[in-house]
Amino acid sequence: MAEKPKKPQKLKARLPRGLEDRDPAAIRATREMVEKIRAVYELYGFEPVETPAMEYTDALGKFLPDQDRPNEGVFSFQDDDEQWISLRYDLTAPLARYVGERYGTDGLVLPYRSYRVGYVFRNEKPGPGRFRQFMQFDADTVGSATPAADAEICMMAADTMEALGIARGSYVVKVNNRKVLDGVLEAIGLGGDENAARRLTVLRAIDKLDKFSADEVRKLLGPGRWDGGEEGKGDFTKGANLSPAEADVVLAITKPRDDWKDAIAAAETYLAKSEIGQAGVSELEEIAKLVTASGYGADRIKIDPSVVRGLEYYTGPVYEVELLLETKDEKGRPVRFGSVGGGGRYDGLVSRFRGEPVPATGFSIGVSRLQAALTLLGKLDTRPEFGPVVVTVFDRDRVADYQKMVASLRAAGIRAELYLGNPKNMGNQLKYADRRNSPCVIIQGSDEKARGELQIKDLIEGAKAAAAIASNQEWRESRPAQFSCSEADLVAKVREVLGRHDVKWG
Amino acid sequence: MAEKPKKPQKLKARLPRGLEDRDPAAIRATREMVEKIRAVYELYGFEPVETPAMEYTDALGKFLPDQDRPNEGVFSFQDDDEQWISLRYDLTAPLARYVGERYGTDGLVLPYRSYRVGYVFRNEKPGPGRFRQFMQFDADTVGSATPAADAEICMMAADTMEALGIARGSYVVKVNNRKVLDGVLEAIGLGGDENAARRLTVLRAIDKLDKFSADEVRKLLGPGRWDGGEEGKGDFTKGANLSPAEADVVLAITKPRDDWKDAIAAAETYLAKSEIGQAGVSELEEIAKLVTASGYGADRIKIDPSVVRGLEYYTGPVYEVELLLETKDEKGRPVRFGSVGGGGRYDGLVSRFRGEPVPATGFSIGVSRLQAALTLLGKLDTRPEFGPVVVTVFDRDRVADYQKMVASLRAAGIRAELYLGNPKNMGNQLKYADRRNSPCVIIQGSDEKARGELQIKDLIEGAKAAAAIASNQEWRESRPAQFSCSEADLVAKVREVLGRHDVKWG
Repeated sequence: MAEKPKKPQKLKARLPRGLEDRDPAAIRATREMVEKIRAVYELYGFEPVETPAMEYTDALGKFLPDQDRPNEGVFSFQDDDEQWISLRYDLTAPLARYVGERYGTDGLVLPYRSYRVGYVFRNEKPGPGRFRQFMQFDADTVGSATPAADAEICMMAADTMEALGIARGSYVVKVNNRKVLDGVLEAIGLGGDENAARRLTVLRAIDKLDKFSADEVRKLLGPGRWDGGEEGKGDFTKGANLSPAEADVVLAITKPRDDWKDAIAAAETYLAKSEIGQAGVSELEEIAKLVTASGYGADRIKIDPSVVRGLEYYTGPVYEVELLLETKDEKGRPVRFGSVGGGGRYDGLVSRFRGEPVPATGFSIGVSRLQAALTLLGKLDTRPEFGPVVVTVFDRDRVADYQKMVASLRAAGIRAELYLGNPKNMGNQLKYADRRNSPCVIIQGSDEKARGELQIKDLIEGAKAAAAIASNQEWRESRPAQFSCSEADLVAKVREVLGRHDVKWG
Repeated sequence: MAEKPKKPQKLKARLPRGLEDRDPAAIRATREMVEKIRAVYELYGFEPVETPAMEYTDALGKFLPDQDRPNEGVFSFQDDDEQWISLRYDLTAPLARYVGERYGTDGLVLPYRSYRVGYVFRNEKPGPGRFRQFMQFDADTVGSATPAADAEICMMAADTMEALGIARGSYVVKVNNRKVLDGVLEAIGLGGDENAARRLTVLRAIDKLDKFSADEVRKLLGPGRWDGGEEGKGDFTKGANLSPAEADVVLAITKPRDDWKDAIAAAETYLAKSEIGQAGVSELEEIAKLVTASGYGADRIKIDPSVVRGLEYYTGPVYEVELLLETKDEKGRPVRFGSVGGGGRYDGLVSRFRGEPVPATGFSIGVSRLQAALTLLGKLDTRPEFGPVVVTVFDRDRVADYQKMVASLRAAGIRAELYLGNPKNMGNQLKYADRRNSPCVIIQGSDEKARGELQIKDLIEGAKAAAAIASNQEWRESRPAQFSCSEADLVAKVREVLGRHDVKWG
């Protein structure tokens, strides 16, 4: 028996998990956000720089937190010459490579303030709202060790949030210092290599202070915590096994306080014996004084010793921008936005290339994440734009004439197009224009052509008229949604219609 | 003997070959180009869409010309579930996947005009001006089989070149049709699978008509060609072994002609017996008539049956945008720009996902390539922008005061920054401001502070004065480059300086 010829297998059109296509409204919103952020960064004297999407794997380093995948969170491939190349997972590591390449040359003026925006890629398990490609917008100052550089970044972060339409009081820039956290760990005797795992457990517990009460965090600092609320209920998280007195110290230092002077005083008291802790406190104090002198109060920038930040490479001040707004998702459940950006000082990252210390501090906005938040909050204009004026095809053999009308509208700066589908049915053409959200369509049959005229159908007026007709027949008659005009008046009359409805294109 | 502890090896800061970092002037130029192209595409009724940088490898397909690398020109890696993912090598294949996923649903209004801009990645051997990451800007119309859709793309391509500042006559959009080329091959008896290799040789020879004379191309159509100019000299390129009569047919059809009617007439004559050739000629004729009716003459859009286009997936009209300008490179050698964009009809690409025919036509601008050309031609503004106003640090313990001045300038919309380097030397601070191209610097020592004053040093005036001082001492005295003002007047006086030199920031 002869085999039947197989039908060629149809390819499935789909994207890998954790990736998404973006529609015009989302693209426009991103463009607006990017321009607003850019304007603030430029105002602060930062200049743009762009690096490619891929780098040598070793140049990027391994700084991603919580790796749970074999290739450590990055997309990698081997080049022709066997060297490994990876897609960037953030915009900081590539900047460190960029600066490392130019440090000490005329190509780099120090201190170097720069910003960059672009997609980064994480080879992680995707989940709701968690993508493998997303956009970041970073600003960094390299070559300055002074806390004034960190203070500047915090003020810029606050200004950026307000430029994006987030009201004062609806966000906060929280500032801490890794050295303060190191001091805390030193104060409770967790220095040394042998305590690395317990240190991490303590930091993770501190990181929970914005979600849990102090009492719950105390369990995580002590023997551990049942997430069902009582012993034996739900999952158990092993604790750091600190004594109650040690847990007191941790909680006393990391307790949220409204006045930065109280936070500094508490930290100073408990960290009196830790040199690194004292250094961290003094940097925090300097940042607090600088931002206060420039008029940035705790409603914008707040000293908060509970801020941890996941990335390993931070060495000093760390910052986190939190949205304080809540909203509800499609199912009516409250959604807390939390962190939409953050950063800190990473004095060791450029040094890897130089063999000399290179101070640096920077800040990253999660554009995709912030956009999702602003969209849910209704802060972004996601209405569809008006479509183009559609010139319909009435007589199939007169396409050149219709094309000429389109060309004259475009020449006048009016967004316009020829209907390019099958022209057999005028109803389909009008339906197309409706779905494109077109303000009006142009129709010219042979009768009109003979008279040197054409018809303009005002779709916006038409929709209003259709809504009003039941109650007010006369109104419709006085402002007809469709009218004739001479061919020569096409541009002027279309302009009239656009003006009537205030149609503008972005 | 104990081993000496090894010094940690210093990482080398470098990029893989074929990738580049981009400076502020290049980034600004790209942004300007992208905005200008976008404006034209929007005017034509095209709407934006964005797909991610990676896709399933099978969804992208294998359509790159001239593969000489093992992984066929694309960067690929295996996902967790063993499926292969690749970075996009153009913006057409991802669009086909996008449309394939939505075709026939409410999510896609047909005909669908869309545009997209972004980086694409080719795993090719890099060379001078040939990068492994570069930017494309595409526009496509899906769901329309009429040559009016192709004609529209050609007009849009011409308008785009002019919007980018390329004068009429300095570019041309050349149009051909794959069916005409198929007709040519049929006319010389090269149909059938067994002639695939010879067909390719003929097409490659035709493709050389814009570089070589007809006589040289005749050699490539015949026995072959020595690139040293005579037998035995240089490398030998094997020819297609056409008979002189067959070569005559090829050259007669593909000969450049100024009037499209002559080109059409020649093709019609020689392709009288080829059904597919006739279909191609008739489509070419319709496009020519449509663009002519809209006022686009041969100085903008030209029928040219020698245009081949490398990509395999084209099925009908093909277009190519060529810069007719020449320039010289750094070594004084003439540089011909050639193609900066192109496209064509690809009716089979979306069909792969659908099992039904889906007509589509599109066009791609090589933004990176065009930008390189425009930069060489001096058509892009690559002057460095003015840097920020720099507030210097005179007294190290008064940083908060200086920071406050910076904040007041920024609040007034003036690009400003605090000097964040080591403040011990005022000369270094002024040098920094010079290198940043700052219009002016602010200085306040303890004397000025005591008087409630500060110094503004106008760096632009200062540079002019320094140039003029030898010839005109008095001039300098009448317009001092440095002056005092009260602290309260800081913003007003800086505005005066900026206004005097017409300083604007982008």
